[in-house]
Amino acid sequence: MLTLYPEMFPGPLGTSLAGRALERDLWRLDVTALREYGLGRHRAVDDTPSGGGPGMVMRADVLAPAIDAAIEKCPGQALIYLTPRGQPLTQSRIRRLAAGPGVVVLCGRFEGVDQRLLDARPFEEVSLGDFILSGGELAALVLIDACVRLLPGVMGAHASQAEESFEDDLLEYPHYTRPDIWEGRAVPEVLTSGHHERIRSWRQERAEATTRERRPDLWARREARRRRDGGET
Amino acid sequence: MLTLYPEMFPGPLGTSLAGRALERDLWRLDVTALREYGLGRHRAVDDTPSGGGPGMVMRADVLAPAIDAAIEKCPGQALIYLTPRGQPLTQSRIRRLAAGPGVVVLCGRFEGVDQRLLDARPFEEVSLGDFILSGGELAALVLIDACVRLLPGVMGAHASQAEESFEDDLLEYPHYTRPDIWEGRAVPEVLTSGHHERIRSWRQERAEATTRERRPDLWARREARRRRDGGET
Repeated sequence: MLTLYPEMFPGPLGTSLAGRALERDLWRLDVTALREYGLGRHRAVDDTPSGGGPGMVMRADVLAPAIDAAIEKCPGQALIYLTPRGQPLTQSRIRRLAAGPGVVVLCGRFEGVDQRLLDARPFEEVSLGDFILSGGELAALVLIDACVRLLPGVMGAHASQAEESFEDDLLEYPHYTRPDIWEGRAVPEVLTSGHHERIRSWRQERAEATTRERRPDLWARREARRRRDGGET
Repeated sequence: MLTLYPEMFPGPLGTSLAGRALERDLWRLDVTALREYGLGRHRAVDDTPSGGGPGMVMRADVLAPAIDAAIEKCPGQALIYLTPRGQPLTQSRIRRLAAGPGVVVLCGRFEGVDQRLLDARPFEEVSLGDFILSGGELAALVLIDACVRLLPGVMGAHASQAEESFEDDLLEYPHYTRPDIWEGRAVPEVLTSGHHERIRSWRQERAEATTRERRPDLWARREARRRRDGGET
């Protein structure tokens, strides 16, 4: 983790599932304070944009030594820069990151980093979604949380199950629990039937209907893949 | 904020931009510990899924009083449940939230919340992206950060500028700063030309090319909108 705000880590990842896994050494977090690489008395890491415009841009010459040191420490790790200009993060990318040797994440601030740094190092630019944050730190926390829950021993078989369902480009089916009747609303009858096959097919049908209705984009991708793969149900 | 992990708030939002704005009362954060509404000696908030399956589901009868109390405190607020089953978060939704009276956010854990609760209250289900987190808390932090930076006085005119560019379904143009040459790579000549109109059109061209290349989905939406609006450049 390369950041101007080292105090943000592990932050929320120190509690709950990821925090317990951190204590148990199931994953490790190294935080580099970019300020330490800053220039001059003020440890400047940024400068005004070439060509003018608002804000500040993080300097390539300041960041490169920090990145090179992080890469050297753990060769083979993915190198990710979180930016709305990147490819949208997906569960399949998360799964591959979680299975890999680790990840070096550069958290941008201000207007972003000098493009030459992104060109000169093997950066993968990743976006959390089509919205703008005040910096990359929260996006990095999200990325790590999504990876950590997949690490062996953190959640057990359970996580991999929830996984598969997203793999399929399907949203999850709706959940219900006790009480059987609440504010006059009953749990769907099939779920209390004890008939496992009916429950399974009801859930599949709900997952498909919800996906069609809420996310036509996912549904279209799913249909395209199924046609390509031979189209069985 | 309704959560099982109140200690995660304000967390990273206590530092940096959002933290300074919090100290200056530019926004306010109320955190409800859902555990306080739990049942019995163990303050249980969850139970096993109706129909079987892994994990636990948050109970409607436990959560409803907490939600009703939060709504009552600030009528007119948006009520959001963060879940991968929701509509993907966008900058335009963020902008409307930031302009509104506030937002009540329910952070799910485990398999999620009883569907009847989502049906019985005016919930908007929102997704950060097509990936799975260990809970809604980090997604809530992201949502709040994206809203807070747009509040008057937090960033000034600057934020609204970055805004507009996303409004257009365009990714941002690349940024450069000093030094003019780094590792043999020069800042694009046009940016040091001092010719404002050439700089503007170069940036526009780079934004369009990057969007076409990286995000054909955004580009297609932009083109469709421009055709609909009469198709001027």
